[in-house]
Amino acid sequence: MKESPGVVDLLGVLAYAELSAFARMTEDAATLAPSLTDRAALSELAVAEYAHFRLLRDQLAELGADPEEAMSPFVAALDGWHAQTAPGDWLEALVKAYVGEGIALDFYREAARRLDPPLAKLVDVVLADEGRSQFAVERVRAALEADPVAAGRLALWARRLVGEALSQGQRVAAARPELARMLVPADADDQAEISRMFARLTEEHGKRMTALGL
Amino acid sequence: MKESPGVVDLLGVLAYAELSAFARMTEDAATLAPSLTDRAALSELAVAEYAHFRLLRDQLAELGADPEEAMSPFVAALDGWHAQTAPGDWLEALVKAYVGEGIALDFYREAARRLDPPLAKLVDVVLADEGRSQFAVERVRAALEADPVAAGRLALWARRLVGEALSQGQRVAAARPELARMLVPADADDQAEISRMFARLTEEHGKRMTALGL
Repeated sequence: MKESPGVVDLLGVLAYAELSAFARMTEDAATLAPSLTDRAALSELAVAEYAHFRLLRDQLAELGADPEEAMSPFVAALDGWHAQTAPGDWLEALVKAYVGEGIALDFYREAARRLDPPLAKLVDVVLADEGRSQFAVERVRAALEADPVAAGRLALWARRLVGEALSQGQRVAAARPELARMLVPADADDQAEISRMFARLTEEHGKRMTALGL
Repeated sequence: MKESPGVVDLLGVLAYAELSAFARMTEDAATLAPSLTDRAALSELAVAEYAHFRLLRDQLAELGADPEEAMSPFVAALDGWHAQTAPGDWLEALVKAYVGEGIALDFYREAARRLDPPLAKLVDVVLADEGRSQFAVERVRAALEADPVAAGRLALWARRLVGEALSQGQRVAAARPELARMLVPADADDQAEISRMFARLTEEHGKRMTALGL
């Protein structure tokens, strides 16, 4: 039995998002962390992303899909996002880890609304890791207490992160209509509903900015 | 109770070896793998290295040592090794993963000869992962069947990997006499015994070259 192309697209985009986040966080940890303890903390988050990738890849294989083929259409958009948002220092890396993970988990939540129970369970497993990036919040807040002037720069940085994500996301939604239909009801006016979904994501992002003190 | 500085040095050098191998393998996987399946296979190995790092770091903390301080003296030597041995393509990355992991496991085995049972058990846990890099052997052998001319270049590459490792290793042993004493009997003529240990490591390396078809 073949799954709908929308489900395969959804698992594919999430799988490559996790695999690429794993690599970029690991690199940010190795090149930007001010101490080996900090480096380990961000690496720990990277390894958790890899575990999510493994779940998604295995789920694709279980559905009879080729994980490589399922991920391929999304490589350019996600690599593009990372290329546009390479952190310049440790604080930017922390904000990116927290904000990027937050956006990804919002997408998982949107997806879970439309998925059958076995797939929705996979989403629950991923969402259970939500607290992991909390260390980034604490470190950013501590850094802002010591240097309140950094807040302006980091707020701008966070806005760029979400702006680039929305722009890549809209491009992907236009190129993959089955995926877009996974995220919005089939009978809705697609563009309007997609805009509402992006509005919800933007609102969640605002809450994360508040948590960071930005 | 404070552990001997030799034990802390040993756990520290192994911990940073694992943490740096994790980061470099992840980067090699992301930048050199010819497919997402290959990228995942090498990333899987990287994540296993991170799990070893976690064990070693926690063991250091349990002994009352500061993991950061324990690793710091070895950062320059291990980063130096990676800088001297950045793979130029996917086959070089696979040979490095297999050969590098082999050298590391030989060191664990040498260390286990001198460690107390609780620490020797940690070494057993790490050594249980030995088969993980087998996929690299299979892919290198398949590549050499398709292109036998590559063997000369890869054999030279492997020799450089072990040569740079021995050179960094001897520098570390000279700078950290307590660590050197962990690896050789206290009453032996240190230099001669260290040379014999390096000879054993070189012999094991030869066996790995045969496995790779080099």
